[in-house]
Amino acid sequence: MIIDCHGHYTTAPAPHTDWRESQLTAFREGRPAPGYPAISDDDIRESIEQNQLRLLRERGADMTIFSPRASAMAHHEGDERVSAAWARACNDLIARVVGLFPDTFIGVCQLPQSPGASLTSSVAELQRCVLELGFVGCNLNPDPSGGMWTAPPLTDKYWYPIFEQMVELDVPAMVHVSSSCNPSFHATGAHYINADTTAFMQFIQGDLFTDFPDLRLVIPHGGGAVPYHWGRYRGLSDMLSKPPLREHVMKNVFFDTCVYHQPGIDLLFEVIDIDNILFGSEMVGAVRGIDPQTGHHFDDTKRYIDALDLVDADREKVYSGNARRVYPRLDAALRALGR
Amino acid sequence: MIIDCHGHYTTAPAPHTDWRESQLTAFREGRPAPGYPAISDDDIRESIEQNQLRLLRERGADMTIFSPRASAMAHHEGDERVSAAWARACNDLIARVVGLFPDTFIGVCQLPQSPGASLTSSVAELQRCVLELGFVGCNLNPDPSGGMWTAPPLTDKYWYPIFEQMVELDVPAMVHVSSSCNPSFHATGAHYINADTTAFMQFIQGDLFTDFPDLRLVIPHGGGAVPYHWGRYRGLSDMLSKPPLREHVMKNVFFDTCVYHQPGIDLLFEVIDIDNILFGSEMVGAVRGIDPQTGHHFDDTKRYIDALDLVDADREKVYSGNARRVYPRLDAALRALGR
Repeated sequence: MIIDCHGHYTTAPAPHTDWRESQLTAFREGRPAPGYPAISDDDIRESIEQNQLRLLRERGADMTIFSPRASAMAHHEGDERVSAAWARACNDLIARVVGLFPDTFIGVCQLPQSPGASLTSSVAELQRCVLELGFVGCNLNPDPSGGMWTAPPLTDKYWYPIFEQMVELDVPAMVHVSSSCNPSFHATGAHYINADTTAFMQFIQGDLFTDFPDLRLVIPHGGGAVPYHWGRYRGLSDMLSKPPLREHVMKNVFFDTCVYHQPGIDLLFEVIDIDNILFGSEMVGAVRGIDPQTGHHFDDTKRYIDALDLVDADREKVYSGNARRVYPRLDAALRALGR
Repeated sequence: MIIDCHGHYTTAPAPHTDWRESQLTAFREGRPAPGYPAISDDDIRESIEQNQLRLLRERGADMTIFSPRASAMAHHEGDERVSAAWARACNDLIARVVGLFPDTFIGVCQLPQSPGASLTSSVAELQRCVLELGFVGCNLNPDPSGGMWTAPPLTDKYWYPIFEQMVELDVPAMVHVSSSCNPSFHATGAHYINADTTAFMQFIQGDLFTDFPDLRLVIPHGGGAVPYHWGRYRGLSDMLSKPPLREHVMKNVFFDTCVYHQPGIDLLFEVIDIDNILFGSEMVGAVRGIDPQTGHHFDDTKRYIDALDLVDADREKVYSGNARRVYPRLDAALRALGR
């Protein structure tokens, strides 16, 4: 069984994304947002069948942990109420996808974060999504300001309410920023990767997992720059008088395989313990083209993993075992389906 | 011959760093800064002989392209005049090191950047350092706000005056941020690496090297996250309808080898053209410890390169040929010495 831990609904029907525009326009003009539009099951089916489902079948994955489009979360737009309504609309749409394709997709929610706002509504939305919609995790934005980085580090007490709720519900978060309103940072080329690197370094500096030994966080995009600079991070942890990374961070932090070339995947598997790597593609995602050097899509990350010389047990960990361990509610759902 | 392109004077005598503190205190209190202290040649000699020179000899490098301590540039502190006085003091001290050890060190200058300020004084200081002090390049901070990222991207016309001066003087810049005043970003663990990644993506997005075909920029720390995500960057360049990276960026951009473990160096050399890699150690620098996995210092990057299976001509490029090409004034200085 092959589980892709990192898929976004980047192909949502146009009325959904149009509504977001109307919502933000209404906010700017001080008007109430219009009602959310009717979207038919057929429109949702089509948007999935022609994209994610087609690619999953072509590439040979069975299941995707599926969340709203990350770049569209845009927590820096509007205010707390705007984010709450947008998160709810996005999560409800994911729930409909899961309802239509229960064998192939399982939900992870967007949180209604907003710069400077408390995480109270995020805690409530996480509860709703897990307990009412059957979701198995959330995406947590370490920078709801969208490239201004005004929030405290993830190790700050500010974040503890959501971590407490995650532990109570036994769900992990993927640490995932959204679009950037800072012209210095290209979203998928700089902001995403920087955020991954930044979050990891924050975990080294802090002692978050002493307070939350059961907290689990997935850092996407192969852990940002971290595996490439693994020596630097081991050295910095030592300079900061922290325990070795394996004990200090890597019991709680996992990387996906969204690294779009073979040498990068080779490095990831060379330096990071197999128990910490989850198959992911970020599909349909950041880089949609075909690599002229291989003739295959950049984001067909399964090819890179298949090319590795892994024993079966390790391959199984990366393709499904680790995901089932990190997302126990996914494991329970799969078991209920006899899988 | 082995040239280290990335060395900082992190061991400057205490009166120098103490003066910086006094300067900033005076600024905050609205007083004029005190006079710069007397520092003896012996104090400078000792600070170098016991540190950089000792390590160069132990590790087997011949020459270091030497600049003021990057984390102490702190362009976000004080104002334009404070930065100008501090840059001048730092650069004059580098010139004294070079004067005392002309066979081993050659200077690269700190620029008096300041958030929001024009680059006029940076252009003047670059001229002074190159034409009067014999320096061969500069460190350019893409984020003088120290982690707030308030400056426009490096492809913006804001930066053109310094690029024009660099081209006129035929000197490169290393793109190097300083310390971070943003609690989200650890300086050497996040801000440095993020800045490298960010700058590279800015170069992909823009067309800077169409305007400046002779401009040369070194991105330190092995290019940040870029080589690890080389497929992502090739794909993003394609998605943005830019030429292949080799033509679009890599005629003008170079990476150093400040990657502190063998697998990272292996990846760097696997994906980046040999003509774009310059030996560097960032010594005495960011990570000072000994790697328990190897028993050697993390930042002894020469060991990793020596372990590569390179033909002699390629090894010579990385150790000296590329540096002499990217820093032609260094080449001229070496030729004048018969080296």
